[in-house]
Amino acid sequence: MRSGGFVSVSRPVITSIVLNLSLYCFHVFALKSQLLTRHGGVTDLNAQDTVINYETCYFDQKIDHFGFLEDGTFKQRYLVNNEHWDQKGGPILFYTGNEGDITWFCNNTGFMWDVAEDLGAMLVFAEHRYYGESLPFGQDSYSDTKHLNYLTSEQALADFSVLIRELKRKVLGAQESPVIAIGGSYGGMLSAWLRMKYPNVVVGALAASAPIWQFPDMVPCGDFYKIVTQDFARSGLNCDSNIRRSWKAIDNITATDDGLQWLSGEFSLCSPLKKTDLDDFKAWLQETWVNLAMVDYPYEANFLQPLPRWPIQVVCKHLNFDPSSVSDYQLLGGISEAARVYYNYTGNCPCLNTSSTATGNLGFIGWYYQACTEMVMPLCTDGVQDMFEPQDWNFQAFSDECNSLFGVRPRADWAATVYGGLDIASHSNIIFSNGGLDPWSSGGVTRNISDSVVAIVIPDGAHHLDLRYNNEYDPHTVLSARIQEVEYFKLWITQARKLQIPG
Amino acid sequence: MRSGGFVSVSRPVITSIVLNLSLYCFHVFALKSQLLTRHGGVTDLNAQDTVINYETCYFDQKIDHFGFLEDGTFKQRYLVNNEHWDQKGGPILFYTGNEGDITWFCNNTGFMWDVAEDLGAMLVFAEHRYYGESLPFGQDSYSDTKHLNYLTSEQALADFSVLIRELKRKVLGAQESPVIAIGGSYGGMLSAWLRMKYPNVVVGALAASAPIWQFPDMVPCGDFYKIVTQDFARSGLNCDSNIRRSWKAIDNITATDDGLQWLSGEFSLCSPLKKTDLDDFKAWLQETWVNLAMVDYPYEANFLQPLPRWPIQVVCKHLNFDPSSVSDYQLLGGISEAARVYYNYTGNCPCLNTSSTATGNLGFIGWYYQACTEMVMPLCTDGVQDMFEPQDWNFQAFSDECNSLFGVRPRADWAATVYGGLDIASHSNIIFSNGGLDPWSSGGVTRNISDSVVAIVIPDGAHHLDLRYNNEYDPHTVLSARIQEVEYFKLWITQARKLQIPG
Repeated sequence: MRSGGFVSVSRPVITSIVLNLSLYCFHVFALKSQLLTRHGGVTDLNAQDTVINYETCYFDQKIDHFGFLEDGTFKQRYLVNNEHWDQKGGPILFYTGNEGDITWFCNNTGFMWDVAEDLGAMLVFAEHRYYGESLPFGQDSYSDTKHLNYLTSEQALADFSVLIRELKRKVLGAQESPVIAIGGSYGGMLSAWLRMKYPNVVVGALAASAPIWQFPDMVPCGDFYKIVTQDFARSGLNCDSNIRRSWKAIDNITATDDGLQWLSGEFSLCSPLKKTDLDDFKAWLQETWVNLAMVDYPYEANFLQPLPRWPIQVVCKHLNFDPSSVSDYQLLGGISEAARVYYNYTGNCPCLNTSSTATGNLGFIGWYYQACTEMVMPLCTDGVQDMFEPQDWNFQAFSDECNSLFGVRPRADWAATVYGGLDIASHSNIIFSNGGLDPWSSGGVTRNISDSVVAIVIPDGAHHLDLRYNNEYDPHTVLSARIQEVEYFKLWITQARKLQIPG
Repeated sequence: MRSGGFVSVSRPVITSIVLNLSLYCFHVFALKSQLLTRHGGVTDLNAQDTVINYETCYFDQKIDHFGFLEDGTFKQRYLVNNEHWDQKGGPILFYTGNEGDITWFCNNTGFMWDVAEDLGAMLVFAEHRYYGESLPFGQDSYSDTKHLNYLTSEQALADFSVLIRELKRKVLGAQESPVIAIGGSYGGMLSAWLRMKYPNVVVGALAASAPIWQFPDMVPCGDFYKIVTQDFARSGLNCDSNIRRSWKAIDNITATDDGLQWLSGEFSLCSPLKKTDLDDFKAWLQETWVNLAMVDYPYEANFLQPLPRWPIQVVCKHLNFDPSSVSDYQLLGGISEAARVYYNYTGNCPCLNTSSTATGNLGFIGWYYQACTEMVMPLCTDGVQDMFEPQDWNFQAFSDECNSLFGVRPRADWAATVYGGLDIASHSNIIFSNGGLDPWSSGGVTRNISDSVVAIVIPDGAHHLDLRYNNEYDPHTVLSARIQEVEYFKLWITQARKLQIPG
């Protein structure tokens, strides 16, 4: 069983046009109205009219913060909007970029755009090193183990801290601006960790759907797939049972060459299945169900793929027959219809490609390297409490795969040492929000740890729903979560102003 | 003006004999009484009968915690005493080793030995990488910039955290033991930072004489030498004035070859002075006065050198003449007598060696590399508020020197970013103790920051006096400081037991 990747395979969906590009943005803040870049990134299918403006900036960041031999720098990209910023100490909402193109996260974090005016906030979205345009060694960044050596969460946190301090130093009026870290998923882990490790730099953090406890020996490895299964079970009669049966049906049918050919046709696969592809085919299907669980939003949206509202309910309509009454062919026919909901909602997809399951805005190789080093997140299935084929968590096999791919061995214990494991009670001003539908909530903090390290649970929310734009179909639980989050922000801002050290 | 080094030059004073050495000590804890090593390290001249026992252990530590290319390990040395340890959750007092041989710090941290029984504590003294025997690349550790690349405080903190977690995991009964970090000087900075960065690993920290604010733009660079000067001013009539005059007298006398020869004879220098040595000679004298200020203890002691009680008072007896009534020769005669108090209290020193000012247990080159990278501590003099020749803090010159020596450039801002600068109020359970006589108190935290980040000032204490053995000549202020420190320890231990997460 591979270590958890948030989203593992890639395909481009959203394009982004940056019209105006300045190497350093510090000096132009005074002229902001002239230099703001119009950027037509559209977030949701039902929010086609949303236009957000930001300026694209680049900062010379040290390649290695933790050693002095490598003294080079690279251009870290970050996006800024200060349209609503109150220059007299208004806060900075700082998105701690995840494993992907920052413009995509910027477009998919409508919450920050929705609350900017109320808070008088500047918005900053900082790209994570080794993703998007922020490549420490340009085209060579992924060329070998040596060049990948600076792709760690610690380096990314140091990037964010150095950048924030520099912004506060160079931007007129920002010296007194409290900074709040915001992130979702791995970006949420980074937000929480930024507050834990650099509380001098950010006054608080909103860590949305951040599975900081998905590391070894913290939570049961099977919880993740149990939640996926529950999402299908609650979305339609027999839905999970039919998926559970499908694996054996695939084995049965693909035992013959005719069966293989039939299956390829039934799924309209771009490349016909071979006997040796079966494991990959099953992994692709499994990842499809996982991704659906992550993006089971209450309205039409385009995050990993363009999808209808409550997509799992739509999927389950194709899987609602009595499992005992159908043949393997009928069952897999339903599965193929279900998969098409995910891959071909737009109707524009001529064939299904099993080498990819989601948007190309995420950096698959980079994340896999991170999983192979620090981000060791055990996942497992038993086929009983979940709807998948049983598979143990096998660290040794995983480590061997990492070694053959990247020439590195994962350090299973390191994340717990460096980021505190279950013992995070001494920190402060962190909100952990989690959606009850989101499989990643398995590794999330879903109970209050202290007065100021708090959990917000959104029972009918999928993966960081709270970070998305307000929408008419939002359940009230996410609206109330967003209200609470903003209240905490205001509290932290007030605290920070009181504490401010003169000079 | 060079960036502050705690003690910059080296000469061996204390020898250490380790009779029993086991590569891994984890497994032998059950047999502790049989394996304890008798170690005759004598701390103070007046504590000749103090014999402390510890076991010497080695742990396979990762050379690089922050990258995965270098996957090698080295043997980190640590010393353990569990004679008084209450195996049912008794605390672990963990000394975070400084820039030197850990046995020397072990011998000079009597406080831990004095309080172990009362607290039922295990004592652990962990050596800092690149010092003593803990050399990541053996003999090659200092061979070039490449091998020095892993000598950073962040790596050292990670070493301590990994070691503590491993001890707690492997030593029977230690799972429930709260760990308290203790350190003095740079070791004290590491203690405070360990609590700040790894609060999951240590429940609190005693940072004795830890100048965590001696970095750029935090405190005035002249305060350090002002305190040195005050120590001499209060220890004898005309003492600081005569030292202030001495620099010009040296210039006057060494203007001629005869004068140079006279001065060499007067100081019994091992190598006669040359014209080109004058700056070095003055730097050596200046460092002598600084070291005296650091170790101005109220009893005979041997820390940097064997010295009488209140050594500055003894020094000042040779410098109490009216400055206007003596010739340059008489003045420098007094200076040479004064220097001999520091270098030849035992009477065994045939000549004075200007290439060294203190014990050889400290790692001069390692510390200089650290000053040239992260530990940028500006110091300056003006000759008015202090008794030294005026010298500005010149970062560029310092950086150039670092580049020519090590091929690295110091990062002046990094310490403030990574360790919080003046803004440390969000942390908890840290005691900053400082001595009023100690020049390093200039960069110390000498006021309470919050209820649990507190300052203890010992007005008549020199450099981390509170960490030394109890002594009949101790001023009451240090006795009361030690009592407060132990009270905080007990509070943290109680808190930790309440918070303990099951499993």
